[in-house]
Amino acid sequence: MICSIPSKGLFVMERNLKLIIEYQGTRYHGWQIQPNGISIEEKIEEILERLTGQRPKVIGAGRTDAGVHAEGQTAHFKTLSSMDCKALQRGMNALLPNDIVVLNVEEAERDFHALFSAKGKTYRYVILNRAHPSVFERDRCWHISRRLDLDAMREGAMPLIGRHDFSAFQASGCCARNPVREIRGIEIHAKDGWISITVSANGFLKYMVRNIVGTLVEVGRGKMAPMDVQRILDSRDRTQAGPTAPAQGLFLVFVDYG
Amino acid sequence: MICSIPSKGLFVMERNLKLIIEYQGTRYHGWQIQPNGISIEEKIEEILERLTGQRPKVIGAGRTDAGVHAEGQTAHFKTLSSMDCKALQRGMNALLPNDIVVLNVEEAERDFHALFSAKGKTYRYVILNRAHPSVFERDRCWHISRRLDLDAMREGAMPLIGRHDFSAFQASGCCARNPVREIRGIEIHAKDGWISITVSANGFLKYMVRNIVGTLVEVGRGKMAPMDVQRILDSRDRTQAGPTAPAQGLFLVFVDYG
Repeated sequence: MICSIPSKGLFVMERNLKLIIEYQGTRYHGWQIQPNGISIEEKIEEILERLTGQRPKVIGAGRTDAGVHAEGQTAHFKTLSSMDCKALQRGMNALLPNDIVVLNVEEAERDFHALFSAKGKTYRYVILNRAHPSVFERDRCWHISRRLDLDAMREGAMPLIGRHDFSAFQASGCCARNPVREIRGIEIHAKDGWISITVSANGFLKYMVRNIVGTLVEVGRGKMAPMDVQRILDSRDRTQAGPTAPAQGLFLVFVDYG
Repeated sequence: MICSIPSKGLFVMERNLKLIIEYQGTRYHGWQIQPNGISIEEKIEEILERLTGQRPKVIGAGRTDAGVHAEGQTAHFKTLSSMDCKALQRGMNALLPNDIVVLNVEEAERDFHALFSAKGKTYRYVILNRAHPSVFERDRCWHISRRLDLDAMREGAMPLIGRHDFSAFQASGCCARNPVREIRGIEIHAKDGWISITVSANGFLKYMVRNIVGTLVEVGRGKMAPMDVQRILDSRDRTQAGPTAPAQGLFLVFVDYG
């Protein structure tokens, strides 16, 4: 959109800017602005207002929950500011608290929308599976001392891949209008006691990754059999699945725009 | 030593226990007990007193400075407690703050001494060399935005390897009785903007790794030539070397007992 400001005789172009953001979610009540508690979205809007003189509405690709981290959250906002992208990034990083960093700022197409243009997302869940916790990663993993059976977990993950009604894995009390999602892949890697569960899908229901991980951990602990996962999925009943894994192990890794 | 406690008719063996400890140094005034400020050594002695009923003197292999971390600090202490090593480790980890973790407790030889038995130590210094900082590693690296010349840094490191008088790289105002140390290796690795400088030596002077890193960074920035490092080493003059690198990038990785 081109806005004419007659008093100044200037034409100002409305720009659509795309942000890639890394954050440690520990101190925040999630991405999205909340009535109580501080959110990452709010912090970013505040800083953009200080830099550009206008408070934009910042739209994120994923509404990460309280305590969840991001390596590649993507967002967009409209602005009349003519600030250069690199200068804006430097300014944002100078003003943001040190648990939020803007990795990139770039001009986006006029119709780019961080949420609606997304073709898919990738989340990673990190488990530390050894006797003692890690001092360095304590806010960024789920520490489970008892040895998990990885083969059973991999077997349990198989039926989740593909296009399914994931009602059994959405937040309890929560009913998405359309609970069908397509999981494109679940990879379980293990090294030196660290287990990462990476899930890529066209979209996610609320708590979906954390409920899948909570269920796979029950399988890894031997409290559920791998074949139970198919039954849970088919039941579409949240009460059948395992507990919700803690937020602190979850990372939004990447948003795919095709 | 075997102590007889006649009133109980028991013989109690004095044990020498070896600890391996991981900690994030951010909140502490270093390993060693300080008149002002909390130390890791003090925290460990406190917790051992609670568990065994006796306050031991805990001796560490390396007196890491304030803000320096450890992946493998090694310590020993004498105790009359008969607590099983695994139970002691579990008890310590349950009581210690979550930025200190005991990785191992084991019986050591009677004459094992964490400091005097050490044949060498390995430290790693971590630099993040990219435009923007890291939210996850912000307390565990030195963020340098300007691109460093790694080839120059590797060339600059060469003359430091071997047995030398490292007076030029010890803390200013500090005079070790014997400033000769033997550096067995310096490895500089780089990946995705992360640079690690790993230094192994038979021992280290105060601030030695941080002063070496500070000097190599001056070389990487082009403020010193690689060949200046030999001149600085030969000068034995602290004022010739680069600034002390910040504590937060340094890790005590490993203590070698041969």
